[in-house]
Amino acid sequence: MREQLMTMLEERKNEMIDIRRYLHENPELSFQEEKTAAYIASFYSGKDVEIVTNAGNGEGIVVTIKGEKPGKTVALRADFDALPIKEELDVPFKSKNDGVMHACGHDAHTAYLLVLADCLIQLKDKLHGTVKIIHQHAEEVPPGGAKSIVEEGHLDDVDAIFGIHVLPLAPAGTVGYRSGYSFNGRSYFKLNLQASGGHGSSPHKANDAIVAGAYFVTAVQTIVSRRVDPMNAGVVTIGSFDGKGSFNVIKDSIEIEGDIRYSNNETREIIEKEIHRIVKGIEELFGVNCELTYERDYPPLYNDPTLTTFVSETLKEVADADIKEITEFPMMSPSEDFAYYLEKVPGCYFYIGCTPKGVTTPYFNHHPKFDIDEEAILVAAKSVGYVVLEYMNS
Amino acid sequence: MREQLMTMLEERKNEMIDIRRYLHENPELSFQEEKTAAYIASFYSGKDVEIVTNAGNGEGIVVTIKGEKPGKTVALRADFDALPIKEELDVPFKSKNDGVMHACGHDAHTAYLLVLADCLIQLKDKLHGTVKIIHQHAEEVPPGGAKSIVEEGHLDDVDAIFGIHVLPLAPAGTVGYRSGYSFNGRSYFKLNLQASGGHGSSPHKANDAIVAGAYFVTAVQTIVSRRVDPMNAGVVTIGSFDGKGSFNVIKDSIEIEGDIRYSNNETREIIEKEIHRIVKGIEELFGVNCELTYERDYPPLYNDPTLTTFVSETLKEVADADIKEITEFPMMSPSEDFAYYLEKVPGCYFYIGCTPKGVTTPYFNHHPKFDIDEEAILVAAKSVGYVVLEYMNS
Amino acid sequence: MREQLMTMLEERKNEMIDIRRYLHENPELSFQEEKTAAYIASFYSGKDVEIVTNAGNGEGIVVTIKGEKPGKTVALRADFDALPIKEELDVPFKSKNDGVMHACGHDAHTAYLLVLADCLIQLKDKLHGTVKIIHQHAEEVPPGGAKSIVEEGHLDDVDAIFGIHVLPLAPAGTVGYRSGYSFNGRSYFKLNLQASGGHGSSPHKANDAIVAGAYFVTAVQTIVSRRVDPMNAGVVTIGSFDGKGSFNVIKDSIEIEGDIRYSNNETREIIEKEIHRIVKGIEELFGVNCELTYERDYPPLYNDPTLTTFVSETLKEVADADIKEITEFPMMSPSEDFAYYLEKVPGCYFYIGCTPKGVTTPYFNHHPKFDIDEEAILVAAKSVGYVVLEYMNS
Amino acid sequence: MREQLMTMLEERKNEMIDIRRYLHENPELSFQEEKTAAYIASFYSGKDVEIVTNAGNGEGIVVTIKGEKPGKTVALRADFDALPIKEELDVPFKSKNDGVMHACGHDAHTAYLLVLADCLIQLKDKLHGTVKIIHQHAEEVPPGGAKSIVEEGHLDDVDAIFGIHVLPLAPAGTVGYRSGYSFNGRSYFKLNLQASGGHGSSPHKANDAIVAGAYFVTAVQTIVSRRVDPMNAGVVTIGSFDGKGSFNVIKDSIEIEGDIRYSNNETREIIEKEIHRIVKGIEELFGVNCELTYERDYPPLYNDPTLTTFVSETLKEVADADIKEITEFPMMSPSEDFAYYLEKVPGCYFYIGCTPKGVTTPYFNHHPKFDIDEEAILVAAKSVGYVVLEYMNS
Repeated sequence: MREQLMTMLEERKNEMIDIRRYLHENPELSFQEEKTAAYIASFYSGKDVEIVTNAGNGEGIVVTIKGEKPGKTVALRADFDALPIKEELDVPFKSKNDGVMHACGHDAHTAYLLVLADCLIQLKDKLHGTVKIIHQHAEEVPPGGAKSIVEEGHLDDVDAIFGIHVLPLAPAGTVGYRSGYSFNGRSYFKLNLQASGGHGSSPHKANDAIVAGAYFVTAVQTIVSRRVDPMNAGVVTIGSFDGKGSFNVIKDSIEIEGDIRYSNNETREIIEKEIHRIVKGIEELFGVNCELTYERDYPPLYNDPTLTTFVSETLKEVADADIKEITEFPMMSPSEDFAYYLEKVPGCYFYIGCTPKGVTTPYFNHHPKFDIDEEAILVAAKSVGYVVLEYMNS
Repeated sequence: MREQLMTMLEERKNEMIDIRRYLHENPELSFQEEKTAAYIASFYSGKDVEIVTNAGNGEGIVVTIKGEKPGKTVALRADFDALPIKEELDVPFKSKNDGVMHACGHDAHTAYLLVLADCLIQLKDKLHGTVKIIHQHAEEVPPGGAKSIVEEGHLDDVDAIFGIHVLPLAPAGTVGYRSGYSFNGRSYFKLNLQASGGHGSSPHKANDAIVAGAYFVTAVQTIVSRRVDPMNAGVVTIGSFDGKGSFNVIKDSIEIEGDIRYSNNETREIIEKEIHRIVKGIEELFGVNCELTYERDYPPLYNDPTLTTFVSETLKEVADADIKEITEFPMMSPSEDFAYYLEKVPGCYFYIGCTPKGVTTPYFNHHPKFDIDEEAILVAAKSVGYVVLEYMNS
Repeated sequence: MREQLMTMLEERKNEMIDIRRYLHENPELSFQEEKTAAYIASFYSGKDVEIVTNAGNGEGIVVTIKGEKPGKTVALRADFDALPIKEELDVPFKSKNDGVMHACGHDAHTAYLLVLADCLIQLKDKLHGTVKIIHQHAEEVPPGGAKSIVEEGHLDDVDAIFGIHVLPLAPAGTVGYRSGYSFNGRSYFKLNLQASGGHGSSPHKANDAIVAGAYFVTAVQTIVSRRVDPMNAGVVTIGSFDGKGSFNVIKDSIEIEGDIRYSNNETREIIEKEIHRIVKGIEELFGVNCELTYERDYPPLYNDPTLTTFVSETLKEVADADIKEITEFPMMSPSEDFAYYLEKVPGCYFYIGCTPKGVTTPYFNHHPKFDIDEEAILVAAKSVGYVVLEYMNS
Repeated sequence: MREQLMTMLEERKNEMIDIRRYLHENPELSFQEEKTAAYIASFYSGKDVEIVTNAGNGEGIVVTIKGEKPGKTVALRADFDALPIKEELDVPFKSKNDGVMHACGHDAHTAYLLVLADCLIQLKDKLHGTVKIIHQHAEEVPPGGAKSIVEEGHLDDVDAIFGIHVLPLAPAGTVGYRSGYSFNGRSYFKLNLQASGGHGSSPHKANDAIVAGAYFVTAVQTIVSRRVDPMNAGVVTIGSFDGKGSFNVIKDSIEIEGDIRYSNNETREIIEKEIHRIVKGIEELFGVNCELTYERDYPPLYNDPTLTTFVSETLKEVADADIKEITEFPMMSPSEDFAYYLEKVPGCYFYIGCTPKGVTTPYFNHHPKFDIDEEAILVAAKSVGYVVLEYMNS
């Protein structure tokens, strides 16, 4: 059956590329992906599957393929939203939606998964267990689509989940993996610091919000320098310090906003606790009142070590000519809402090299000139195909 | 002659009050005092004086009264601009210029000085030396009028200068004085701090302007705490910290504005030097580029000790029934551009109590309900009258 | 009687100088002044006075001279302790007690007051009211002698107190005065900051006491820069930061000691409150435990304005040839335990110029080469003599 | 030949244990290992090898075993110094050198390598290439022995180097490996900050060293929080802040000492540059003079990825019953002077699990109760034996 699936995928390589190009030409922003969702839904029209549309908090689509033989349930996910970026690539299938671009490769993700899903549907009679295909909306904009799909229960009966991201860190043919924490998690905070204003010449009659805010900023530096395990990644960036006022009036209040990154849950907890502690400390230190809004965003993405080894070993073992190299990839600094699925069930989110041929310093994801080697789409389909079959047969 | 002048002033007390009320009803903002200047100029029309209009950088008027007897040259100054304050007093002569108010008593200053000048003109034949009457525009808004009047040379032939300010620190009948430094001086700075932006998750690829700015604010606290003589007054207020941005983008630049106060020139120099030093230190410390705009504003006002003693002793000695008490007043925290005159020639700027009768907690200058006891106008005229005659005869 | 007293003092000028030289040759440290006290006590031996020895917490002597006419009770105080300074002056009456020196002029204070007291004893029959002579031990070393003398009740029946200090700010013949707050007050604190140690490579497993202490130091700067009225003097000096340790071990605790100065009670309260607040803030900010010892030392010295005017007016009016000038002196930065008497009863502590003849830049009090013009001793005796008689007769 | 070597090692297992116990009983501190070196040298006495004693800056011994067949040159290293720790283990072979203990397992390292070397000597006729046995002194105390051995040229003809460390992170039978940066590097600094002292009441006449030092400490926090790549480990610990003084005297100078850790060379450069920058910034900011001593200590240890894969693959492939598991180990926070060898030639430093049987929370290296499962010695000998033969035959 493995050879059969691979042959089918090879034969439909051009179809995958066509789908990818169609999607690339018609990108839609997160939470506004109506046409894309309709396109996906129509792809499954008439096929022998269960299909849930409007899944989660938007245009998510969950397609259930029930194999005719008993077995486990595995989920596969591809995201399909695009970015508010004006495309600078000059390709025949350039974005027709001005200012919106598939600059993160979600077009390729969706293209491979549609065809892979269709092949699996055709192989249902031989398939052990159930495959859930998650076409996910809104990966780019918090709160994202993944969390709501989990909350709706779509993973309640799932044993494992797999997904991939195209990444121009390597050429097509390379598959990257990383065990354990692999993408940073993210939190956000806003601090309203209320002191009391006054005339610039009489500081003793006022309580200076800018001074309190400045000491807050310097104190916050100690979280990363002293509280976070040096072996873990932790970042506290204060991106906004809104203390604009008149030069000779002591500010009565300021607003600070911050961005927090962490490589694992332990660091998430530490930073969150310390920000709260420092806010209380500043209140005491300067006699000011603080209102702190603190929100957790995408968690750190944790690849199950056993399943990650399973992925890399499986792909090495199959010795497929299209999958030339399987190698460890570094920790990723951005965040990815696939992490929510992995909080619910074990799984592995891995990488498909896509550096365009002949390019030595490729444009990265989110760049207006981001491009992929379309050979990578077949590599994605085959890799996930091998993994899902091997998993279900194991 | 002294008795003669005093009798004349007493007889014209109501005229002074009328002038003050006319001016109060028709206030004009600094550098826009056209009608007020025309009113003052017309007052001198046909009188035997030299008159310079449009003196300095605005509507200043300098009137020279040449006594027929030889003697020194003394200058007297009254300011005549009003404030952008909406009057909340309910008086028959309430401001007709909505949103503008004589909330600092310059109306009273001008009223007494016009009448005193007129009396001195009438007494020219007995007068020793020359009196220069400076009706000054734009005291409230830096760079003020005084500096430009000095620069035009109007004080080049002057031996001493006197002026007064009405102040509700004491009732009408009280004259206040202070020797040496009496009003704070003021400077201003603006700091553009240029670092380099970046993504919130990658601080090592950016140079965080907000962090550098926060350390600047904390370092600046040491100027007053460690550099300024504790016996002198010094204030460094950072009134504006403009670092508003996006929470997850490291700010590339911020703008800080500050207000500086000092009780004497030594402190002015220290703070100015230290701000420059700290800016250079922050450039080095964080590898940022700073553009610093630093401007000296009104200097600290320094009353000549000999002439201050001369004023207080003269007024004690005359034992005038309208001048009930002569007392030392505290250092004033605001700034006053009379200080420029006192940098050029010795003199004394003193205070005329004006707390309205029956009021125990008066509204202070610059308050929308600021009010004066109009008896103070005669006290001002007489006090300055005594001082100028005594000085010219000495 | 005034002339009589002055003549007596003039005739005993050399005796005063001799006493001063004897004391200068035999200085004793604070709280160890046994021989000096015995010398003073023996001076009064056989005279018609009440004498209390061992007054207060040491060698204080209180001598009561009851005038035969009814009147008020006035206290006069001279201190008599010396300093742990090795004299570098080459005078015939150089200190015989090596390493101890009358480098603050207490020898002169005691010399004039002994003779003045003796003259007043001789004039008892004409004297109105009572004079209490306080020979005070231990002015130089907190807690000082003054506080304990007040606590023993020696001022309970006193209406006013006067005292002087010799000061080389002006030549002999000049008397200085200052109304209101005139000497700074002083407080002390010690902070034990307890965090938890650890290996230098693992900050996340420890809690760094040095970092918490450093932020404490930077936060403390805001007390003077933002909390204290710029018109008042306030100083917070951290003289000791004991954080010595091994370079690669995170310190578990540090000890900080500080010195606090203030020109008035309001500032004393503000700084005390803020130090406590900041300590609590640092505890919260860094999760450390602080033990704070905070002690008030000599209060700011407050000269009663009415009595200060009384002193200056009296001395001007007498027009004594030896008292050539009466002038205002600046605020003094050191502290002086005469302040405790002035918390109990109104009074005036004033200054006797003593710059040695021909010296333009004199050595100040507490310098190993501190010296006085001995003419100042008679000026002190006469000045205090005039003041006490005038006060008792008023 | 592989089987032959393994059999020889198995047969000499007890001898290895005996050697280890002898060394354990006779530990010597770094740079004082005379008897240990003599013991090692005597072990080689009469054997057919070249031996260099007193290698490097101490008691190092380099033994060259020339195989009779042509091939590469590989170095094997074991360290043999002990620690200033008072042993708390109760074993028959407890340290006889009170206060000194083999608490880091160097006794086991030396034991296995002596026997392995002897076996290789016996197999010389079959051996391809040359084996250099480095018995290294002074690993525990910087500058260590490794650097000087490299500088003497002992690695000039070497193609690769291998070494191991026993570690109670896993039981005997487990071999750990890590590719790339594996141990932190370390630097040290001492900062003498010279300001100028003065009286606590007059900060404006002094320049406060403690304040400048405190701002230095707060500024230093930004190196790790903002300059170091969050994906890399970087630590700046200030272990000593020597600012002890008198509470009322402004400190004229302080001394700060710091410990720096980094996971790779890039981070080493960044921190070193930033410390220098901040020192210059503080000089400018506060007008103080700083003398900075900055020393690089052991570099970060970098395992060659190819040779690390070679080690792990080789050990998996041999399927030796004594080597039960080969697994990735985490980054190590301490530093190790094997890093110097790896700067010179590629190689791999790997781990030998040694948790005593039945122990779940073992005492770690450097603990007075550190202990090993002696089975680990044979595992070390076999592992290194496999690696060296495989390498030389490849």
